[in-house]
Amino acid sequence: MPSLASTTGPVLIVGTGLLGASIGLGLRAQDVPVWLHDASPTALALARDVGAGTIHDDSAPEPQLVIIAAPPDVTAGLVAQALRDHTEAVVTDVASVKGVLLQELQAIPGTDLSRYVGSHPMAGRERSGAAAGSSELFAGRPWVITEHPGSDPAAVRMVRHLATDLDASPVHLDPVDHDEAVALVSHLPQMMASLVAARLTEAPPESLALSGQGLRDVTRIAASDARLWAAIITGNAAAVHTALSEVRTDLDQVLHALERAATDGPMAAGAAGAISGLITAGNEGARRIPGKHGGARRLYAEVTVLVPDEPGELGRLFSEIGDIGVNIEDFAMEHSPKQKVGMAIVSVLPDAAAGLHDALTQRGWRVVTP
Amino acid sequence: MPSLASTTGPVLIVGTGLLGASIGLGLRAQDVPVWLHDASPTALALARDVGAGTIHDDSAPEPQLVIIAAPPDVTAGLVAQALRDHTEAVVTDVASVKGVLLQELQAIPGTDLSRYVGSHPMAGRERSGAAAGSSELFAGRPWVITEHPGSDPAAVRMVRHLATDLDASPVHLDPVDHDEAVALVSHLPQMMASLVAARLTEAPPESLALSGQGLRDVTRIAASDARLWAAIITGNAAAVHTALSEVRTDLDQVLHALERAATDGPMAAGAAGAISGLITAGNEGARRIPGKHGGARRLYAEVTVLVPDEPGELGRLFSEIGDIGVNIEDFAMEHSPKQKVGMAIVSVLPDAAAGLHDALTQRGWRVVTP
Repeated sequence: MPSLASTTGPVLIVGTGLLGASIGLGLRAQDVPVWLHDASPTALALARDVGAGTIHDDSAPEPQLVIIAAPPDVTAGLVAQALRDHTEAVVTDVASVKGVLLQELQAIPGTDLSRYVGSHPMAGRERSGAAAGSSELFAGRPWVITEHPGSDPAAVRMVRHLATDLDASPVHLDPVDHDEAVALVSHLPQMMASLVAARLTEAPPESLALSGQGLRDVTRIAASDARLWAAIITGNAAAVHTALSEVRTDLDQVLHALERAATDGPMAAGAAGAISGLITAGNEGARRIPGKHGGARRLYAEVTVLVPDEPGELGRLFSEIGDIGVNIEDFAMEHSPKQKVGMAIVSVLPDAAAGLHDALTQRGWRVVTP
Repeated sequence: MPSLASTTGPVLIVGTGLLGASIGLGLRAQDVPVWLHDASPTALALARDVGAGTIHDDSAPEPQLVIIAAPPDVTAGLVAQALRDHTEAVVTDVASVKGVLLQELQAIPGTDLSRYVGSHPMAGRERSGAAAGSSELFAGRPWVITEHPGSDPAAVRMVRHLATDLDASPVHLDPVDHDEAVALVSHLPQMMASLVAARLTEAPPESLALSGQGLRDVTRIAASDARLWAAIITGNAAAVHTALSEVRTDLDQVLHALERAATDGPMAAGAAGAISGLITAGNEGARRIPGKHGGARRLYAEVTVLVPDEPGELGRLFSEIGDIGVNIEDFAMEHSPKQKVGMAIVSVLPDAAAGLHDALTQRGWRVVTP
């Protein structure tokens, strides 16, 4: 059977960590010929062994597309080298910083950038290495394509095909706009999560015992890899600095308000107004985050059910909700401290909530929400 | 059938919002006699109508226990008045600040505080009003009891019985320690979530389109009620100020490192080290948050499955996992921008992950993790 992929190859992937190996796996699953290169022989052999492609050597054909999937701090050099070594190939990369990278490339003399199109698939930052690679890693994820004014339209098309072949959603952005966008929606929350979690290193266990779902949510990404993220954040230093400086301006107002409230009590002039103003601005900002499927955030009703932590109980809940005939729009678990019970938060269309509540209660479930 | 509750009543609940009404519903479900009072006749009638108790009047018997469930800024006055009006009753409250409140009470002349025991059930801050009340609101939640050195042991026991009758987990803390603990695990993450979300109010939609699960997690609680939280935060101003000042110290180091990296590039002396140091501290802090059931955080393996957004698909996944015979330890959903597909992240014991992966793949599911 011929491949259904728009990418015909041969494709050369330079850097066979999680992203490089996953691209290889996804293309190989569609019979696209893939060659692999990595500075580390071990990483290279591992990527070959998981099925991401063939090790690149002198017998390999000239690539149609070269994908640089290396750490951000070495990407510019590898892109320039690929453009020199493969004079007919389109070259792209997957680094998380795009404007700074383009500047670096423009500063390397004799580089023909018409065949270069930057890109940034937004997936998989929680794991690393080819062993964690998956042909499905990019499915349903945004894949930002940052062509520059000198990019050849045919080169842009080829990178777009790569994204769609891997089931990602292509998004076109100016390179500098991209860097500001990821500073805001990715690097800023990462730093803020780390700033909160860092405050917990010396907290007494009795305090931590009061942790609720709010703290868990805010600090989930604080578990991210320090070396990788230090490279990502310093690579986008200017844009992250701008975003965090604006946060500090707001933070200073909050601190000033709290200082007054601590001295003069909660009625201190302006104190409650400053705190309430920040939370109101946060309400508004949170509402602007696109919801499910990138559309406007739909308002679901939540039905919270207590689920004993025993094998099969969660499965039984789901199959009974299926029997009742209600579609689950979203789902989350919260866990209770000390008790062997979880709270299943089932999001359904508002019209269905009351009926689901009653039907589950009749079947003996403990439903917490009215 | 006689009530199984340790609380015998009569109980008087002053303030019939979410917490007061939920306490009433929980006690009424166990046939404990409950009387209700609220400054707002409408709120009072609503609480009665949902079944939280009887409206308090001159014919009501003297209460054994008075529970003040009013906003934090009026709680001290109501506690003092209850101690004067009901000279045999134990008085407690449910305000989210305890040390400051005790100080306020100690400053009111002629108040016999031996019958007063502060408490703080940690539940239900996302909703408000008696209509959202539930007899199960406190099930599995921590209920902090903050007796002071002058509290009568019998009074402490009575408040502890209230917590256990409502299926909450009692936790005893010094009032000042309580305020520092909630500043750290509740008020700090709330302010940080709002600080991040507030930065999104003027972000271009193209930037917001790149939002991932990380941003959604960090900003989930930014949707909290501004008026309620302004009262909570200003009520605990000193402790929140301390926590946020420590954050600012860290933030200033990060900003300094980013300034150098923006000027001299990612190799700028100390820049990567400062960022990496913060993220490493965050790794350590995040690991200290107690996991499921308050025990040490167990390490589960995650199996991520692509689920079409169609009625019954999530239910089918759960029932097939049940058929395969694997227990689901935790579960979360991520949604893809633009695509009609969700990612179901199923946490299982590490030994079960590989088998589940294979069995689901065989049944035709698209499993993303290796």
